[in-house]
Amino acid sequence: MNLAMIEAAAARLAGHARRTPLLDSPFLDEIAGRRVLVKAECLQHTGSFKFRGGWSAVSALDAELREQGVIAYSSGNHAQGVALAAKLHGVPSVIIMPADAPRLKIDNTRALGAEVVLYDRAREDRDAIGATLSAERGLTLIKPFDEPQVIAGQGTTGLEIAEQAAAAGVDAADVLVCCGGGGLTSGIALALAEKAPGLRVRTVEPEGFDDVARSLRSGRIERNDSQSGSICDAILTPSPGALTFPILQRLCSPGLAVPDEDCLRAMAAAFTRLKIVLEPGGAVALAAALYHPDQIAGDAVICVASGGNVDAEMFGRALDKYAE
Amino acid sequence: MNLAMIEAAAARLAGHARRTPLLDSPFLDEIAGRRVLVKAECLQHTGSFKFRGGWSAVSALDAELREQGVIAYSSGNHAQGVALAAKLHGVPSVIIMPADAPRLKIDNTRALGAEVVLYDRAREDRDAIGATLSAERGLTLIKPFDEPQVIAGQGTTGLEIAEQAAAAGVDAADVLVCCGGGGLTSGIALALAEKAPGLRVRTVEPEGFDDVARSLRSGRIERNDSQSGSICDAILTPSPGALTFPILQRLCSPGLAVPDEDCLRAMAAAFTRLKIVLEPGGAVALAAALYHPDQIAGDAVICVASGGNVDAEMFGRALDKYAE
Repeated sequence: MNLAMIEAAAARLAGHARRTPLLDSPFLDEIAGRRVLVKAECLQHTGSFKFRGGWSAVSALDAELREQGVIAYSSGNHAQGVALAAKLHGVPSVIIMPADAPRLKIDNTRALGAEVVLYDRAREDRDAIGATLSAERGLTLIKPFDEPQVIAGQGTTGLEIAEQAAAAGVDAADVLVCCGGGGLTSGIALALAEKAPGLRVRTVEPEGFDDVARSLRSGRIERNDSQSGSICDAILTPSPGALTFPILQRLCSPGLAVPDEDCLRAMAAAFTRLKIVLEPGGAVALAAALYHPDQIAGDAVICVASGGNVDAEMFGRALDKYAE
Repeated sequence: MNLAMIEAAAARLAGHARRTPLLDSPFLDEIAGRRVLVKAECLQHTGSFKFRGGWSAVSALDAELREQGVIAYSSGNHAQGVALAAKLHGVPSVIIMPADAPRLKIDNTRALGAEVVLYDRAREDRDAIGATLSAERGLTLIKPFDEPQVIAGQGTTGLEIAEQAAAAGVDAADVLVCCGGGGLTSGIALALAEKAPGLRVRTVEPEGFDDVARSLRSGRIERNDSQSGSICDAILTPSPGALTFPILQRLCSPGLAVPDEDCLRAMAAAFTRLKIVLEPGGAVALAAALYHPDQIAGDAVICVASGGNVDAEMFGRALDKYAE
């Protein structure tokens, strides 16, 4: 993995992915006690940064292989990113989802052009179903984070942050990234290490699911005990990846963790002050910036708001409890 | 009023106002039966396009006059736009608001650096208070729409739409604009008439408050019977302005009107599909595009989403009723 791969991904994404804005508000600055800049990836196609990685991976395939189609396992943001990227390339996609996934997610993924294959979590083996389909149809598996072209695609977010932070006059700051398996974080870290070395990348995770922060401390890949129990479903990955972890280890400062309630507060603050919709897992970085300022250094902080795919009930819960 | 004034305003706004994104979603295209492009001015500083006009007007003042400060009458988006523009110029602002305005709006306007002067709607004369203050302190009144430099500032939205629509491959479309007094609409119409003549500007208003649509039909300035009774508070202006109406008359196609319920539906659709927060008055254009497609011509429609300053209760109402 290197900067050239990210720049090549950026060239393939040009005109297809959105260049999302870097937003701010004096009201957020006041809460945080420093300048707060928010990279609004919730405004990316399909509502999260995952479209970047999906497009990067699909567009990087050899044309003949691409024609046969792609496959992904996901009930969430990666599914939608891959489905739309495949559709826009005019190639088939198969998304393997648990049969008990929310109906709306299944419908959305289908509406984005994917063939959704449902499996029974209790009785069927997802990997076996995927392997059979791939072999039969020649589908290429696109993994959610531990895949070079996916990391390169997510890293294009970092190229934009480097330019936008410079335009905003910020050349030294912590860059807080909502972190699951580390694809987005490692991509951004690679981009910033060369493009804006004064910007220090740090992971943010939900409390109790801080596998990356613990891995960074211990120097080896640590796992979470559980895969559920936080509202931040988008980033409850069990452990950092074999590809992503060495990059995180080399380039990132210590990781942070925030309680779920702070994510709800940050969602309400983003609603009132930035007019954007964040999902809980997409709000952990902003939550750290606003409500844990003592763990951050410097006059400015940059937060990646990684996604906005939240249902009305959860969003209403944030507003009811915390909107001013 | 001419294009040169808008281009001069754009030069003054550069690096200060945000270039807001033009968003879209295949799900919205499907509802509308054509391509839908949404100019997200809710993401502008202070949560609405009004910052453009405020900045344009304050920055256009003679330096000596500007030093003395500015004054505006508003309890809404114009107040916040002027207050922040004055603060960023380092000059004082006075905003005259009714004493019964929502506490949060008063607090926000103060937090943006304005001196808020409250008056009793029943017993005091707002204009007299303003005139006295202006005379005593040499404050310049910045009117909300019937003011050339304000129109020029709002018109910068049109310059961006022309460029962004061209980049999206759209050179012929109806451009729907949420319309109160016509400052935003007339500014955009002036910009597009020269920069993208295939884009036809049309006003959208709340049903029962369609003074502009009726004025365009009759050829003279018509008034609304009432100034309240719609949830679209930001655009319940009694009639188009003396400056704005001739521009609208010369450049705009027939106006549209939508019921309040369609605004709530559009707010929910923008939440789910675009991840942006719209206020009811900022959603009328999107509501027309999505739910009144038979009144629009062409393969694409552009909607200006003019503001997002909505409280959690109203937003929750939209989500409870209409979010998928």
